[in-house]
Order: sequence, then structure tokens, then C-alpha cells
Amino acid sequence: MSINMRRMLIGRPLPTSEAIHQRLSIPKALAVFSSDALSSTAYATEAILLVLIAAGSGALGVSMWIAIGIAALLIIVAFSYYQTIHAYPNGGGAYIVSKDNLGKGPGLVAAAALLIDYILTVAVSVSAGVAALVSAFPEFDPLRIEVALVIVAFITIVNLRGVKESGTFFAIPTYAFIFGVFAMIAVGVARVVTGTVPTVTPEALEGAGHATEALGGLTLFLVLRAFAGGCTALTGVEAISNGIPAFKRPESDNAGRTLIIMVGILSTMFVGITFLANSFPLTVSHEPGTATVISQVARYTFGDGTLFFFYFQFATLFILSLAANTAFADFPRLASLIAQDRFLPRQLTNLGDRLVFSNGIISLAFVASILIIIFDAREHNLLPLYAVGVFLSFTLSQSGMVVHWFKERKKQGFAPTLSWRLKVALNGFGALCTFVVLWILLITKFVEGAWLVAVSIPVVIFLFLRVHKHYEDVAHSLTLDGIESADIHPDSYKTGNRQPVVVLVNSLNRSSLQALEFAVRFSDNVRAVSISVESSAVENLQARWKKLNVGIPLDVIESPYREIGRPLIGYLHELDEKSPDRNLPTTVILPEFVVSTWWEKLLHNQTSVAIREALYQDQIARGRGRAVINVPYRIGDELYEPVIARKKAVVSAPTPEPVTSAPSVNGTHAS
Amino acid sequence: MSINMRRMLIGRPLPTSEAIHQRLSIPKALAVFSSDALSSTAYATEAILLVLIAAGSGALGVSMWIAIGIAALLIIVAFSYYQTIHAYPNGGGAYIVSKDNLGKGPGLVAAAALLIDYILTVAVSVSAGVAALVSAFPEFDPLRIEVALVIVAFITIVNLRGVKESGTFFAIPTYAFIFGVFAMIAVGVARVVTGTVPTVTPEALEGAGHATEALGGLTLFLVLRAFAGGCTALTGVEAISNGIPAFKRPESDNAGRTLIIMVGILSTMFVGITFLANSFPLTVSHEPGTATVISQVARYTFGDGTLFFFYFQFATLFILSLAANTAFADFPRLASLIAQDRFLPRQLTNLGDRLVFSNGIISLAFVASILIIIFDAREHNLLPLYAVGVFLSFTLSQSGMVVHWFKERKKQGFAPTLSWRLKVALNGFGALCTFVVLWILLITKFVEGAWLVAVSIPVVIFLFLRVHKHYEDVAHSLTLDGIESADIHPDSYKTGNRQPVVVLVNSLNRSSLQALEFAVRFSDNVRAVSISVESSAVENLQARWKKLNVGIPLDVIESPYREIGRPLIGYLHELDEKSPDRNLPTTVILPEFVVSTWWEKLLHNQTSVAIREALYQDQIARGRGRAVINVPYRIGDELYEPVIARKKAVVSAPTPEPVTSAPSVNGTHAS
Repeated sequence: MSINMRRMLIGRPLPTSEAIHQRLSIPKALAVFSSDALSSTAYATEAILLVLIAAGSGALGVSMWIAIGIAALLIIVAFSYYQTIHAYPNGGGAYIVSKDNLGKGPGLVAAAALLIDYILTVAVSVSAGVAALVSAFPEFDPLRIEVALVIVAFITIVNLRGVKESGTFFAIPTYAFIFGVFAMIAVGVARVVTGTVPTVTPEALEGAGHATEALGGLTLFLVLRAFAGGCTALTGVEAISNGIPAFKRPESDNAGRTLIIMVGILSTMFVGITFLANSFPLTVSHEPGTATVISQVARYTFGDGTLFFFYFQFATLFILSLAANTAFADFPRLASLIAQDRFLPRQLTNLGDRLVFSNGIISLAFVASILIIIFDAREHNLLPLYAVGVFLSFTLSQSGMVVHWFKERKKQGFAPTLSWRLKVALNGFGALCTFVVLWILLITKFVEGAWLVAVSIPVVIFLFLRVHKHYEDVAHSLTLDGIESADIHPDSYKTGNRQPVVVLVNSLNRSSLQALEFAVRFSDNVRAVSISVESSAVENLQARWKKLNVGIPLDVIESPYREIGRPLIGYLHELDEKSPDRNLPTTVILPEFVVSTWWEKLLHNQTSVAIREALYQDQIARGRGRAVINVPYRIGDELYEPVIARKKAVVSAPTPEPVTSAPSVNGTHAS
Repeated sequence: MSINMRRMLIGRPLPTSEAIHQRLSIPKALAVFSSDALSSTAYATEAILLVLIAAGSGALGVSMWIAIGIAALLIIVAFSYYQTIHAYPNGGGAYIVSKDNLGKGPGLVAAAALLIDYILTVAVSVSAGVAALVSAFPEFDPLRIEVALVIVAFITIVNLRGVKESGTFFAIPTYAFIFGVFAMIAVGVARVVTGTVPTVTPEALEGAGHATEALGGLTLFLVLRAFAGGCTALTGVEAISNGIPAFKRPESDNAGRTLIIMVGILSTMFVGITFLANSFPLTVSHEPGTATVISQVARYTFGDGTLFFFYFQFATLFILSLAANTAFADFPRLASLIAQDRFLPRQLTNLGDRLVFSNGIISLAFVASILIIIFDAREHNLLPLYAVGVFLSFTLSQSGMVVHWFKERKKQGFAPTLSWRLKVALNGFGALCTFVVLWILLITKFVEGAWLVAVSIPVVIFLFLRVHKHYEDVAHSLTLDGIESADIHPDSYKTGNRQPVVVLVNSLNRSSLQALEFAVRFSDNVRAVSISVESSAVENLQARWKKLNVGIPLDVIESPYREIGRPLIGYLHELDEKSPDRNLPTTVILPEFVVSTWWEKLLHNQTSVAIREALYQDQIARGRGRAVINVPYRIGDELYEPVIARKKAVVSAPTPEPVTSAPSVNGTHAS
């Protein structure tokens, strides 16, 4: 990507010192971190009703109790996280809390579960946004995957522009949706109380309010499944605890306040919508073409075709499409924490031009796009996979907090006070509740797709461990243990360097001359080598070598099969044998051309690519590195003036005493 | 491609010394070089008849005269080329002959024309093969492009296996087709003479023999168009003159003999088929679904549904698909000649594993495949482009021969003898005939597509010249003109190397220690530099540097925008300023890791890629090269043992007299 295009898309680079000014105020943070959680109210009620309808329309009333139960769970989890936020002011996501208190294993489980869930969040919410768009404009249906990928690309670019800018941008749809839902609840409740529900056009109501035949009884399993369906409303609650460092100072206070505000809004909206859904004669059906529950509620509240009804529809569409933004805010941050602990590639810790973890953002967009393509951008294919990871991380994080409080008491040695007991109880109760819900989710959704998550988590953990093992190996290879001092002074090495150096030459010209002069400045032990693919070319080279009186021995390697790599490696191994020190393998000097355009590059022999590959394979096989010196020669600019040519011009200048070049034992190489 | 897969597809590598054993005998050469020319008899007669039918079926009789005219032209061209083959025993294609006698310009025109025509030959003949296949198995019609590309890939692999093997392989279809056509002519002529034409089923004959209404009169233009259509029979005649070095010794004699045999077979087949086509009541029509003329002739000759009829159909299908092979034999050879003269990329002169010009073969396959895709694998879209290039090169080559004879006489100073006059007359008449046909082709086919060739030839010539200009610039940059002696002796440089060397470090470990030790062996003027992206990491490095007492100055570059490239380049420019000699820019040492798998590579910071790119751009901008030393450290094998560590062990070893490192003027750098 050219610099200009990059500037246009993501803006000018920000200096590291500006990081503090990129922090989020509470209103912006609410927009960034709550769009995921709040958007789930657009479908959570429907998820409950669609399960209950199997027991006939009479069973739908139970939804109100389920909604209240979920709201209660939400409040418990929120307070539990509120405590976490204050205990871990530098970011208290499930990964940190579990790792700190339960150990590395549970930490990695939480990390894997959360990463998977963030990816699913993006895929699900963008797909849901596309579904809303397609139900408004059915002509887009054949393009659903393309539209979804464009939305992902758009969110990616906004996030690459920086945390603050995405906060500003995403504030609009989030607050528009909040306003719309609250207006709907206020007007709707007023209508229910006063009994003034507007008439709805017959088409819109086809089949509405008709009693549906029960397919079976209202079993406990059904109620639990309905409960599990509604629990998607809780996803996104952990987002704030991961994102504490993005808040303005004092971070914990602001994050805690944002959490409470968010949960207040969320539970009101969820219970309110479920109440209205129970008060109007809705159509609840799996049939394709049935309007969503939330749009039916809006139609009964505002009246069909009114301006406000359309406003509400569009606000829903936007919040659903952009809910993915919360995952974009959290995933890169979590990935960078994991990478800091060396369980993921180090590049994920790099701050990009705009002080965000660009590599994490791009990775998330990439993987989510693949999921969207695989699942055909249809969110109902993805929903069963969703939420399992969240509840696993909830459970681990809150169990971790319980351990945390015990450790705290042990460290400070105080007797169990009432406030301490309350803290333990809150986190413990939270852990218990989410643990139960986790099992409900797993059991009721296992066959539909939750098994895929149960399989993916161990796979991701295996990758974590593999990456970690590699970084450990690297660290072990590089350790300076046992070396107390490294007083490398140039003087102590200056005794005539006998390290073998080989210059590859094809013909004698200014470029090879430059390389040869470079070599002799470096070592007393320089040879040139040419690989004979065509005998006439080599004879020509040898003749010129003699004629120009080059004072460096020229070796010729025969290559009957016109290869370059293998004969060269064989030759180097021979020289390595003769090296005065096995720690000093033969160094290779490659003269190369610098040309300015891609097509000029194509015009030059690609042999250096083959040589590089051969040297790389040899290093792998030998278990030792070999230094390679590229001496580039710029084509088309001023000529390189060989030192030797200038020396001729001042031929009578006093020649300095030559350093001995005899292969004697010397201080540097004594062993 | 892995070595094993390569072995399987194209066979074991052949040593250069085996080249002589890869030469072709006359029977194999006939198969390789004539498949293109002979296969054209499968459609040349039809091409004539389809033009004449516009003047009504009564006009078809003219085709016999046109065929005889083309056969005469063929024999003239053949004898003209026979002379060329003996005059240029090392390969006398149109490019060489025109360049030698008419100059560089006409040579390049001939080269461009021939290259384009070879590409068209592949596209046309493979498409014609697919058409024959599809008329037999219509279910392949939707896959015509895929089938065509598979055939191209197959011919490519056979050719990569070597000249001799492809000769063996392609002998089968070529001789099968020759046998089939001769059998058909013999039986057909016997039937015509005895009047025993077998009955043909009514479906096959629908509309056959019915007089067709004339659309217009039999104008001269129409006759010329018919003649032009039939001239495709001449394409491929120049193949042998390009391929002389592929023949067994004596090359010219064998090649000449092969040419005469080929032309004899070709003209007999062409005239014979046209005669039979005039003797049977054929359907000649542009309607889709009409059987080809040659298959109608075969049906009348052998009888519908007979075994021999099927044999003939399959032989036609094979020769058409594989006629492309002639182009594969010639294009790479011609391209390598042009590349030797530096008008095409040098890589085209490389002999591959199997002693063929692999890069030329692959280039031809690639470009022809693109043409096949663009023209939808339908040969009638491509035919109008065809043959123009061939006749242009015929004309140039034979005009060149006329000039050649005059030069020859001038050089040897003999009076014009009768045999000399005959030679000039033969080539001159050949040149005149082909020149006239060239104009007929251009005029009658211009609108249908020949204009595309007229446009492409100058474009290709422009590319030739552009490539040539580049190689000239390179040669100029590299010239040793003005340098009489290059007696580089290590001793003359050993006066304390003051060339600035910079080692890039991120942290102090065995890898950076290895690089530092490498640097001090090379120069007295070594610095280390670290680019500060994260201040804590740099402070850590500085502390360790001090603690381990590293005797090399460590510079730190601040990078507020977390870039690597730009700050590094700025720093290097500063050091360059301070260099004792502007011919010695600062050398950069990059410690790097050697890991064995692709995923391990992904785990390491990609900064070295960014550094390389920055250094490359800087070299372009400065117009000077800068040496870069990679000091690789193999991860996971035995540890590198720093020299310094071993030195400590023998702490009392006598320290040799240090070479002065003061920046004094010295012999090497005096200017």
C-alpha cells in the first residue's frame, strides 16, 4: 500500500507520546464497548420466544420470567466484574485474572475461549447486519457475502484510524439505537397502560395473534434452552474489563462507572422489549419471511409506515452491523497481552501508525472474513457457536477473583471482615451462576455447533504452547549465561584476519572489482570463485583475470548439470575444513546489481535467489550460520572508482608496512 | 516444485556433455518440425472452399487451381530455404539472415513477427484440436478452455523433458496422420477413377451436393482471399531453418533433406485432398454443425462408420492438438538467439535440466495460455491473425538471402556465374512471391484481425529495444575501460581499515555478540546502533551494555513514530559524512535468525524486511550501493562460543601489537 493511500485511509502517523491523548471519555467508551452487548437486545427476546413456541403460544408468557432471570444474572456478573476492574486497574480481562490466580493453564483456556468468541462476534454481528439489510432490500441477497466483507473492511479501517476516532464514529449508531429503544419502551408501555395500540395493516399481521398448536409440553429442557438462547445478551459484558487502559484517568473509576451505566441500560432495554413482546399479539415463527420480534414490537408501538418506525428499523440495522466494533476494540488488546507472554507471534504487540495494535486488527478481520465466507454470511449458522466461550471465560475469571481475595487476605494477614466476605460471596456466586449457564449452553447447543468451539479451544491452546516453545528455544539459544564480560575492543582482534572469504564472480567488471576490494579490506584470506556453466565464459574470465593481474586466486567449480547451489555449497564446505578456526566458517560475498524498476530486476539472472536458498538450506542442515555480504552496485549512476586505480595515480606514495598474512597462530584465535 | 515431482515430470538432469547425444535423426526431426505444417492440410482446403462458396457452388472448381498455385509457392519457398540452410549451417532463421544481411532493424522485425506467429500457432492449433474433440464429444464444450490449457500443459511437460524425447513422442501422431492421408488419397483417387464411391447415410449428406445460390460474382478479390486462406499451409516451413542445431551431424545436409521430404509430403497431401474435395459432392457451408471438409472427404472415401474412417478422425484430432509442438521446438531457440543479442531477458539463454531452453518453453506456454483464454479457445477467432507474421519473415529472410549472395560475390570477387545467378533468382523470386502474398493476407484479413498483428509487431520491437537499452546501460556502468591492472593484493589494503561499520542491535545476546565480533574483525571503526521504539527496552539494553563492558560505542536513535527504516537511513547518512573516504560508505551488519520452518519465520519480527526495503530505496536515491552483511545465527543448534569468552580462558596469552587505529592518512586511501 502506498504511503499516500495509507494516509488517506487511516490518517497521519501519531507519535508514541500522544498515546495518553488517545484515551476515551465515558460517553465514547460506552459507544465503543457497549455496541456488542446492547445490539444483542435486538434478537435476544426473539431467541427466547422461538424456543418457547414449541410448547404452543400459551407458553410464551414464561419469557418474561426468563428475561428477568437473565437480567438478574447480568447484574450479578456486572458487580462481579466491577470488583475485578478495581482489583486489576491495568486491565483485568479473564486471561490476566485467570493466569494470575488459577495458573497458566486456566489462563490460556480463558484466552483461547475469548479470542474465539471475539472472532465469532464479528462474524455473527456483521452477518446479522446483512440479514437486516437484505430483509429491507432483497435484491442484495445474492451479494450477502460481498456486503459482509465490505462491512468488515470498513470497520477494520475505522479501527486502524485509532481508538479515539472509532469511538467518535461509533457513538452515532449506538446512541441512536439507545434512544430508539427507550422511546419505544416509553411509548409502548404508555399504550399498554392506556390500551391505545395503533391498528396495523392486515398484511403485516397475517397470522398474528393466532394460537399456535403446541408441538410438545413446556419441559425443563425447553425452558433451559430458552434461557440459553437469551444469554447471548450477556456477551460483551467482559469487554470493558479488557479495555481498562483505553480509559481516561482515573481508569478504574471511569471503567467501573461505564460498566454500571451499560448494564443499567442493557437490562432495562432487554426486560422492556420482552415485556412489550408479551403485551402485543405477535407472530412468533421459524418460517422465513416472518418479521423479527423487535420490528413487530416497533410496528405495534409506533404504527406501521410512520417516520419513527423507519428510524427504528435503520438504527437496528446500524447497531447490528457495527456491534463487531467491540470485538475490534478488545481482540487486538487481548492478543497483544498473550503475545507479550510469548504465546502468540511477537508482531501482535507492535503499535501501528495510529497507536493501535494494527496486526491484531488485521488478523481479526482476516479470520472473521474466512468464517463469514464459510458460513455464507448467515448468522443463524453461527449463533450456536456463540456465547459458550464467553461463559467459560466468565466462570474462570470470577473463580480467579475468589482465589484473588483469599490470596489478598493471606498476604495482608487480616481476619475475614464482613466486606471481604461480601466480595468473596459476590464473585463466588457470579462464578457459580455462569458455570451453570455454561453447562446449559453446552448441553442445549452441543449438537447444533457448540461442539466446534469445544474442539477449537484445545487446538488454539496447542498453538499457544507451540509458539511458546519456539520462543523459549530462541531464548535458550541466545542466552549469555556464563559470559560475564563482553569487552569487544577492535584492537584485540587486529592481528591479521585469517577468516576465509569467497567472492562469487561471473565476469570481471566494476561490480566484481568493488566486491573484491571490499573482501581484501576484511580478510587476508580471500579467494574468488566462478561456477562453470558454460566453458567459454569461464575461459574468458580466466584470461582477463590474468591480463589484469588480479592478485587474488580464482577458483573454478565445474557444474556439469548447470546448477549453482550444490557445487557452491560443496566448495564452501571444503574451505570451511581449512579454516583456522571452526568458529569462523567461510564468508560469502555476493556482488549484486541495484536497478530501480521491477522489470529491470526481471532482466537479471535470478541466480542470487538460488544461491540464497542453497545457503539457507545449508545453514539448516549444518546447524550453523554463515555470514553473507551483499556488495551492491548501482547501475546507471556514477561509476565506482576502484581504490587500486587511484592508487596507481599516486604510485610513489609510501607503502605502509604490510601486516603479516602468514597463517600463524595468533592471540585472537588461540583456544 | 519439489525435486521429486520435477524428476517424475521431466526426468533426471542431463549433463552439458550429453548435448550432442540429444540431437535428432531425420525421422524424429520430421516429426518435431513438420507437425505444424502437415496439420494445416486438415483445414487449408476448407479455408479456400469457404471463401469461394460466396460465388456459388459452381465457383468451387477454382480451388484446384489455387491449390496448385499454393503448392508451387510452397516449392519455391522450400528451395529458397534449402539454400539458406546450407548458407547458415548454425541456424538460419529469418532473424539471423535478416540481421546479418539487412541490418538490425529488419532482423528485429523478423524476430517479432516470428515470435508472435509461434505464439499464435500454439493457440490456434490447440484450439483446433479442442474443436475436433468437441465435435466428437459435445459434452466437453463447456470445458473447452480447460481442455485447451491441459493440452498446453501436457505439450509443455513433454518439451521440458528434452528435444529427443519429444521427437520420439510426437513421431506417433505425425506418422499416423501422414499414413492416414496418403491412404485416403490412394483409395479416393482409385474410387474416382473407377467410379465406386460408397453410399453415405442420408443424415450425413443432408444438403450435400445441392447447388448453392451465388451471393456475388467470382471477383479477383474473392480468389485472392481464397488464396490467402489456403496460405496457412505454408506456416511451419521456416521451422527447420531455425532448428538446424538440433539435427545430427552433418546438420545442414540432414536439415535440407528433411525440408525437401516435408515439402514433398505436404504438397502431395494438400493437392490430393483438394482434388478429392472437388470430386465428391460435399457440403461447404459456414453453418455450425457442418462436418469439416476433410472428414467429409474421408467419409466418402472410406465409407461412413468404417474402422478406417474412425482411425482417420482420431489421427486428425491428434495432429491438430500436437501441431503446437513445432512452435515449442522453435520459439525457445529463437528467443535464446534474440536474448544472446541482449534484446530479450538473459534468462532465456539458460539451458534447463534437460538441455532445453526451459524458460522459453514456459514463457511460450504462458503467453499462449493467455491468448487461449482471451479468445475462448476458438480457433476461428485467431485464424485471421495467423500467417501474416510468417509471410513477413519469409519476405525478410529471402530478401536477406539475395543481399547475402551479392555480399558473397563482392567478398570473394568472382564474376557472376550461372549458378550464382540461379541462386539469386531463386531467393529473389521467393521474396517477391511471399511479399505479394503478405499484402494479399494483410488486405484480405486486415479488418478481421490482421491489424492486431500489425500493431503488435512494433510493440514487441519497442520492448526489444527497451531491454537492449537496459543491458547497454549495465555494460556501460560495469566497464573496466581505463583500468589497465587490477592487482588487488590483500597486503596493500592492510593498514587499519577505517571503513565505518554499524551493527544493528535490539538486545544483547549470543546472536548480536556474534555480529559484533564479526564487525571488529573487519574494521577499526565499528559502532552499534539501536532504534528506540519502546524506551524501556532501550534502557535495558544500555544497562546490559555497560554491565558486560562491551568495548564498542552504542548509539540510540529515537523513533517517535515507531518506524525503523527512515531513522536508520538518516543515521547512516550522518556516518557516511564522517567516513574517511567517500568511496567507503557505512556498511550495515544485520544479525539475523535462521529457523527451519515457515511458521517459525512468521514468529520473528519482520523488521529486517523493512530495513532491506529502506536500504534499497536509499541506494536508488543516492545512486550508490551500500554493503550489507547478514550474520545469521542458527536457532536450536549448538551455541555460538564468542571468541572473547575463549580469550578470557587464556587470559595471559601475549597480546599482539595492535595496528594503529588513528584516522591517519594512509596509502590505501590517499587520493
